Amino acid sequence: MDDASPPPGHGFDTGGLTVQEVGETELLRRLTAVARRHGDGDRLVVASGDDAAVWRPPGGAGIVISQDAIVEGEDFLRSWIDPEALGRRALAVALSDLAAMGARPALCLVTLCAPGTSRIDDLLAIQEGIGAAASEAGCRVAGGDVSAIAGPLVIDVVVVGTLDPGRALRRDRGRPGDLLVVTGCLGGAAAGLRLLLEGRREPVPAPHGRAHPPAEVLAAADAEARWLGRQLRPRARLAEGQALVRLGVACAGDLSDGLIVDVGRITDASGCAAEIWLESVPAEPGIHTLLGAAWVDAALGGGEDFELVAAVAAERLDGLLARWPGGLAPLHVVGRLTAGSGLRLLDRRDGQDVPLPPVASRHFRQP
Amino acid sequence: MDDASPPPGHGFDTGGLTVQEVGETELLRRLTAVARRHGDGDRLVVASGDDAAVWRPPGGAGIVISQDAIVEGEDFLRSWIDPEALGRRALAVALSDLAAMGARPALCLVTLCAPGTSRIDDLLAIQEGIGAAASEAGCRVAGGDVSAIAGPLVIDVVVVGTLDPGRALRRDRGRPGDLLVVTGCLGGAAAGLRLLLEGRREPVPAPHGRAHPPAEVLAAADAEARWLGRQLRPRARLAEGQALVRLGVACAGDLSDGLIVDVGRITDASGCAAEIWLESVPAEPGIHTLLGAAWVDAALGGGEDFELVAAVAAERLDGLLARWPGGLAPLHVVGRLTAGSGLRLLDRRDGQDVPLPPVASRHFRQP
Repeated sequence: MDDASPPPGHGFDTGGLTVQEVGETELLRRLTAVARRHGDGDRLVVASGDDAAVWRPPGGAGIVISQDAIVEGEDFLRSWIDPEALGRRALAVALSDLAAMGARPALCLVTLCAPGTSRIDDLLAIQEGIGAAASEAGCRVAGGDVSAIAGPLVIDVVVVGTLDPGRALRRDRGRPGDLLVVTGCLGGAAAGLRLLLEGRREPVPAPHGRAHPPAEVLAAADAEARWLGRQLRPRARLAEGQALVRLGVACAGDLSDGLIVDVGRITDASGCAAEIWLESVPAEPGIHTLLGAAWVDAALGGGEDFELVAAVAAERLDGLLARWPGGLAPLHVVGRLTAGSGLRLLDRRDGQDVPLPPVASRHFRQP
Repeated sequence: MDDASPPPGHGFDTGGLTVQEVGETELLRRLTAVARRHGDGDRLVVASGDDAAVWRPPGGAGIVISQDAIVEGEDFLRSWIDPEALGRRALAVALSDLAAMGARPALCLVTLCAPGTSRIDDLLAIQEGIGAAASEAGCRVAGGDVSAIAGPLVIDVVVVGTLDPGRALRRDRGRPGDLLVVTGCLGGAAAGLRLLLEGRREPVPAPHGRAHPPAEVLAAADAEARWLGRQLRPRARLAEGQALVRLGVACAGDLSDGLIVDVGRITDASGCAAEIWLESVPAEPGIHTLLGAAWVDAALGGGEDFELVAAVAAERLDGLLARWPGGLAPLHVVGRLTAGSGLRLLDRRDGQDVPLPPVASRHFRQP
């Protein structure tokens, strides 16, 4: 019992592929397969694999629950953002999964893993940002955990919401022929990320009154500030998700990882294929100028826009658009589900297939 | 907008105390105060500050929810434990909070933050351990998140359970005169931690049949293996928590941070004081021999035993003991709540006050 080096078969690192070698998507697929083996049960209506789990407690309405971590160095740098905005961002990322289910937020819990050198005031400001954003979303802070870490700051947020029975927006409810509809514009968050990686930062508001630079400087700065805001201050499309449920839509997901990846999750879960119509993708205004031809990578592969994508029966589209509430992010048709499997990108102006853009995952990159 | 170094007031680290300087307990107190300001609401029956939050969804039973992170380098080293056991441990730590509320486990979610060099098989084994332990506790794995991290492995587990309305074991339900009762024996986990820090490891079971060392070696090894097991393979006292509720107890918490800290949480929440009777504390067998006089530090200040401590009206003790089910961890009276505030440690054999042992927190230590 006194051998300090464990024998083979004991402990970690007994060989095999690393996460870097297989990538995040494959890791998530394998972890989900293990989770699913332990996830059956008639009260667990939607288990691992959708945006969030749906659970029906004894005698109650549907409960939706999801968990999302953001990690310093992977999802943000401290120089990009102030702590209060970081807390708001952590909550928004998690709430986006509730939006994607059409749920109403109820509770959140937060785990903070912070190095011992962290400033107390910074951590309290993070918690303050989470609390303020939670209040705005009608959601209560119900607890969490705190731990030291000899490493980067980790903020792991759990959100719990409610749903009327049988009214979840599920990834597995798409049918060939359905039209793919997105909320809002795409690619702004990726453009903002690019600016951040180039060293640009959000402007600090003047403490009293507004600064008045020349108009042309202001216009360019406004566009940049908007993209930085899309990256740093995302909003979950909660009202849009609830409107989709109310208007009879059954299939949707959020655009946390970009249109290509997230439509792929819908086709995988629904057992069908999809085509995306390049000329119909609503790009964030101005990113053509910033990015040139790479606007396609940002709008389709970039992720973190936290818009929603829904699959809508073709004959119900007109009714949905007619009844879509003013004040919500507008809907845009970007493609359709088809029979078969896989994803095509088409430019219908010339009927040509377009190569799929690379998918930008900031996690588990090769060094 | 192109200044790479943010101006004052923007970003992190604008001064003030660090976490190391104020300590985990004070950080948690301040974070909880912020959370509570955002945690009101009539559906949130028990908010931040107890072992777990209790929530009453529309039309349903009480929902209990808690979140617990374990962090490599703080809570475990990879050389101590195999990945499957680590997954089981992560779930047990979280389930202990449900046990402390008297809840029945229903769901769990898991966030894994793993460095890119992690072996896929190790991460799957962690997930497998969580899933197996969840199944044994009647709990379904409902999802989670995965992220890269340039740092240590983090496993953050969320557990959700159910409660009959009004039947939670709360920290704020103690009254002066109540007797303090613990389940099981204390100090084994701290003894196991000490062995691990000295380089001892759990024995690897022989692949076929049992090894047969001499009897005296076996007896010593058995005690060490039991202490290592208390540290590495804790079990949540779920059946005991549910029995306490069923037998009419209203006030309890778990012993995640040791008797001194966790009784202090009950007295703080209940607005009273406590005395602990040293001669009555049920120490893990054999730790007097291993630790000498320091057995007190392990049994009262050590933490991670994940036993429960309850406050029971004195006149109800006999009934509780008489009706306590066989097969559950035995109950031991270790002290009582009194009027006032603060905590006394008494040895009733000579009626003397004993100095409180130091509280062992492995988090946010000074380097």
